[in-house]
Amino acid sequence: MRLPPRIAVALGLLAAQPVLGAEPAGKFPPTAADILAAAPATAWRPIPAENLLRMELADGRAVIIELTPVFAPQHVANIRSLVRQKWFDGNAIVRVRDNYVAQWGGARDDRAVPADVPTQIPAEYERPLKGVPFTPLPFPDSYAPRTGFSDTWPVGADANNIWLTHCYGAVAVGRSNAPDTGSGIELYAIIGHAQRHMDRNLAVVGRVVEGMDVLSALPRGPAPQGNYEKANFIPIAKTQGFSASDAAAPRFEVLRTDTPTFTQYVNARANRLDAFYAKPAAGIDVCNVQVPIQRRK
Amino acid sequence: MRLPPRIAVALGLLAAQPVLGAEPAGKFPPTAADILAAAPATAWRPIPAENLLRMELADGRAVIIELTPVFAPQHVANIRSLVRQKWFDGNAIVRVRDNYVAQWGGARDDRAVPADVPTQIPAEYERPLKGVPFTPLPFPDSYAPRTGFSDTWPVGADANNIWLTHCYGAVAVGRSNAPDTGSGIELYAIIGHAQRHMDRNLAVVGRVVEGMDVLSALPRGPAPQGNYEKANFIPIAKTQGFSASDAAAPRFEVLRTDTPTFTQYVNARANRLDAFYAKPAAGIDVCNVQVPIQRRK
Repeated sequence: MRLPPRIAVALGLLAAQPVLGAEPAGKFPPTAADILAAAPATAWRPIPAENLLRMELADGRAVIIELTPVFAPQHVANIRSLVRQKWFDGNAIVRVRDNYVAQWGGARDDRAVPADVPTQIPAEYERPLKGVPFTPLPFPDSYAPRTGFSDTWPVGADANNIWLTHCYGAVAVGRSNAPDTGSGIELYAIIGHAQRHMDRNLAVVGRVVEGMDVLSALPRGPAPQGNYEKANFIPIAKTQGFSASDAAAPRFEVLRTDTPTFTQYVNARANRLDAFYAKPAAGIDVCNVQVPIQRRK
Repeated sequence: MRLPPRIAVALGLLAAQPVLGAEPAGKFPPTAADILAAAPATAWRPIPAENLLRMELADGRAVIIELTPVFAPQHVANIRSLVRQKWFDGNAIVRVRDNYVAQWGGARDDRAVPADVPTQIPAEYERPLKGVPFTPLPFPDSYAPRTGFSDTWPVGADANNIWLTHCYGAVAVGRSNAPDTGSGIELYAIIGHAQRHMDRNLAVVGRVVEGMDVLSALPRGPAPQGNYEKANFIPIAKTQGFSASDAAAPRFEVLRTDTPTFTQYVNARANRLDAFYAKPAAGIDVCNVQVPIQRRK
């Protein structure tokens, strides 16, 4: 069993605590669900309303995305500007490729990109690690020297830089071949296995916090790249941003990734041992940790 | 750049060869698509018709699964028996949980499990590595000491044992809490990010070779575990096996994982460098290699 010492110790400590689930106390360590149920309010933090983006399809179903101005400030500024100028309203989802991405924004042939939205912007694919919050995961990774979380976001890192990862539900900016062509007029979400080879090659700008299945259960496009025929585009009714003072803004909270609760949560998911799981994996990849996000109570 | 020496060398060798795509010769190494296009016929092998299972939904759409009697012989024997006795005909998909699984076979309350299908069978979760084909991947993994491929199947391995991985499209056997309760009457497929913590805890018995989107694009169930209300079960019309001599059997081939072509394919996917990708990942996880499977020409 490849059990890193740090985790083995944590498991031992946890096993001595009372179990919070339905199993006999002491038989199994707390599960991830137990740990969330017992988490103090301070283990969570609100998601700023001004970072939320609501996209409503013509059929009324909605996807809510959290943008991250910290990692991709200029891309996010572009997207905010595009939303204000209704670039996505009446636009469409144009591509859904199985085990890959759902992509939208590319159905706008009735108008040009707004003049105040730069179509050439820096490739914000990674940033210096120095001074950035980083909770490393103690497990090896197939793509990056290190992985972990930066203020709730899954990241890869090397000695100098840190970058967002293309995990399930990540929202990123489509582009042409040149790295500086990702203006934000087309966005995509990962709907299958993580596409980590895209890390540092495309700009991740956010994550879906609600309504993921609105994207993941869409019909796959018939072309090799998953493109829809124009007649089958999925129409977007509107996109909407919020302000911090907006009483109607949806309220979400995310589990902080710099607390003992989060360490316990990761340990429990990396070492499942309960009435069902008999063989703990003793590891977990950064995209399968799945930082909990929920509507605020 | 974390470029393992072996890969760096391979990249160098490949870069000196003529490029097969549309890019100027010599500018980029061959892509994975280039390598497949140039692969000799001997780089592929047929999938035995007797290992194929065709599941047709009531709406006429079909999923074709390859079973692996090598890794889970008793589970596969049970499934073959259940198919012959029409266990799945008139049954249903009962659960679709986002970023997790689609599950079927649990809607059979009109008859008992056939008497010749053992409901208690050994937990075929791993097998001794000795004597088993194994092409290791040269990249670290978050779950297993080693990963790689065993005669085209993605696997994890330690010093003694080898096991199938819960990658996207993997088909496995649902069970109750006890490890020996996975009789095959309920099956599931992974429809999101790999669920590698299930490795060695549940029996992988196959993989979807065609029609994956028939499962992955199904509506997600409303309950926390993704269960459908009975009224919303997705009915299965029938399941069908084939014999080697069956002229009507679908014909598939899979890229062999023990050839120079496969090594080149993995290297190209681990080190994407073309007109679009500027920063090769220098790594890939076992579930994102995606061993090519295609209809036979």
